[in-house]
Amino acid sequence: MKITTNTAQFDKPLYLESGRLLETYEIIYETYGEMNEDKSNIIIITHALTGSHHAAGFYEGDRKPGYWDSLIGDGKAVDTTKYFVIATNNIGSCFGSTGPMSLMPNGEPYRFKFPVLTISDIVKAQMTLLESLDIHHVKAVIGGSMGGMQAICYAVEYPAFADMVIPMATTAYTRPWAIAFNKVTAESIKNDPEFKEGYYNPEDIKENGLKGLAVGRMAGHISYLSRDSMMEKFGRGYVEQDGLYELFGRFQVERYLEYNGYNFPHNFDPLSYLYIIKTINIFNASRGSDKIEDAFKQVKSKLHLLSFSGDVLFYPEEMEEIYNVMNQIGSGNLCTYEEIESDYGHDAFLVEVDKFENKIVAMLEGRYE
Amino acid sequence: MKITTNTAQFDKPLYLESGRLLETYEIIYETYGEMNEDKSNIIIITHALTGSHHAAGFYEGDRKPGYWDSLIGDGKAVDTTKYFVIATNNIGSCFGSTGPMSLMPNGEPYRFKFPVLTISDIVKAQMTLLESLDIHHVKAVIGGSMGGMQAICYAVEYPAFADMVIPMATTAYTRPWAIAFNKVTAESIKNDPEFKEGYYNPEDIKENGLKGLAVGRMAGHISYLSRDSMMEKFGRGYVEQDGLYELFGRFQVERYLEYNGYNFPHNFDPLSYLYIIKTINIFNASRGSDKIEDAFKQVKSKLHLLSFSGDVLFYPEEMEEIYNVMNQIGSGNLCTYEEIESDYGHDAFLVEVDKFENKIVAMLEGRYE
Repeated sequence: MKITTNTAQFDKPLYLESGRLLETYEIIYETYGEMNEDKSNIIIITHALTGSHHAAGFYEGDRKPGYWDSLIGDGKAVDTTKYFVIATNNIGSCFGSTGPMSLMPNGEPYRFKFPVLTISDIVKAQMTLLESLDIHHVKAVIGGSMGGMQAICYAVEYPAFADMVIPMATTAYTRPWAIAFNKVTAESIKNDPEFKEGYYNPEDIKENGLKGLAVGRMAGHISYLSRDSMMEKFGRGYVEQDGLYELFGRFQVERYLEYNGYNFPHNFDPLSYLYIIKTINIFNASRGSDKIEDAFKQVKSKLHLLSFSGDVLFYPEEMEEIYNVMNQIGSGNLCTYEEIESDYGHDAFLVEVDKFENKIVAMLEGRYE
Repeated sequence: MKITTNTAQFDKPLYLESGRLLETYEIIYETYGEMNEDKSNIIIITHALTGSHHAAGFYEGDRKPGYWDSLIGDGKAVDTTKYFVIATNNIGSCFGSTGPMSLMPNGEPYRFKFPVLTISDIVKAQMTLLESLDIHHVKAVIGGSMGGMQAICYAVEYPAFADMVIPMATTAYTRPWAIAFNKVTAESIKNDPEFKEGYYNPEDIKENGLKGLAVGRMAGHISYLSRDSMMEKFGRGYVEQDGLYELFGRFQVERYLEYNGYNFPHNFDPLSYLYIIKTINIFNASRGSDKIEDAFKQVKSKLHLLSFSGDVLFYPEEMEEIYNVMNQIGSGNLCTYEEIESDYGHDAFLVEVDKFENKIVAMLEGRYE
């Protein structure tokens, strides 16, 4: 599979939902496979909170592939011998697209001068990129979690753009439960003295990353797993070399959280994290409409909804609600909903691809009902 | 209702599960009502993570009563005109019983020299107090959450001591899900520079409390509520004076977490918090037995189990498991189990007393089946 990585620059301002604008911006993106002549094989992949444009394949020398490599590749469900796949890095992120630590024309990083973005803004920027590539219609948009919010946004705001939209493990509007988990991270970042109220020097926190982000990330990991998946993965196992009656002796689950928490901030900018969780918190597919029903009345794409039974971040009933709305407004023929059995929790959309890959194939081939 | 507060001092060492000992220790406790002549009206109340001996009634000048005032008092379910109620502050706590910031004989606070305690140790200390009061049998032990763990411990380790034991919203062994929430708090405390790796001067953090504990407490609050209770309480309400497109603009749920998070540490010592969550993490009613069945075979008290349907910290099925075990080992006649319908979440045992108070009355009067 050929991976192509490009950065596109835009000099026309992006008008944002907030009324503010990004004067100029860049989007880094990756493509896999080849576009066919009639441009009928294009699939857009939208990424989750900590994802990037690197959705599949290996970079030279890397031991780990892109985040959805089990789904995307030659001969895989999103088959790159058939489809031309485009994965962009969201604006606001810290992996190459314009974000809060990008430089303003005066050479200073934006920091808090960066505008708050919404999921709609992120998708609008993607549309600008796609238009610049002379792409005006795609076969499918596929994304999980925050990527699923973007997928829903495509369906609601660009009704004729995709043949089908496949949101997974997501919601039509973020509920206080998910906002609460993000809040722990936000406060944890803000209280870290190394954050310097947002005026940190990135070089200073490069080596270890920001501890406040690490702790917040641990709270996040609770919501990505589930009670059952934790019980199965860790049970009450204790770290062998630790004493049960040592105050800081650790259960296996604690070591897991430490490992995943403290390893995370090396590669993630804390201001970027704050801006991204804000887009998640304020996401509401019905914004601009009076009611969620009005929003989904816009949909003309096929809407294939996949939830995971063990998801405790965006509960399956939140996606079922979308399905029910689509039926209530007489668009049931456009919509399918399936809850995939999984104890894994929210991250099932990333780690249990084997449980739904055949469904994706059937959707893309138009034979999933 | 008369409140009596006393502190008992013990000079005989308390031998702990860890093999270590507390040479001397103090227990502060409160009593409500009057003990009758044949001592048949005694009820022990065991407290949760942040509770104290102040379970009911008002201190002079206070606007808020003890934490379970809706349950305990004259004419209430735990009727202090009938029963003599004893509520002790657990050792390890910071409200008057001996804990990690108590002074050692050399005049220095214990800090990390304080031994790790277990739920069994806490109950053992309570038993020493009760013996010193010439109490050798009680009518009931009632407690929720960590107080429920203590109640279970009474039932398993002191089989002839209570006529009945009423644990609520608790578990027979703490699972990784609950340990994970505690982990966020532990790391958040440890990373706070004001914690000074445990060598803080309490006076220095008195005014604002430790921010690291505040953030950890926010994670805790997620587990005390539930997705449904948050949705009902806060919906997607936004704080009026905050801007939706301000990076630090807040949803109502965020304001709630800030309020409850940052107000908490004024009155709670961080080292004490670390020691208490450790007792919760390592709690396992079957410790010392090969199997949980063996532990519950010891039970001779009536065991009335109450869970709450919306509890996402200790899920109802964890208490149902105890009921099933009691039945499997042929002790079904000693055990009842009921799941109380409640969307509130874990804290229902504190805030929705009206949903189960009649059941407590029936249990205490011996007519609950």
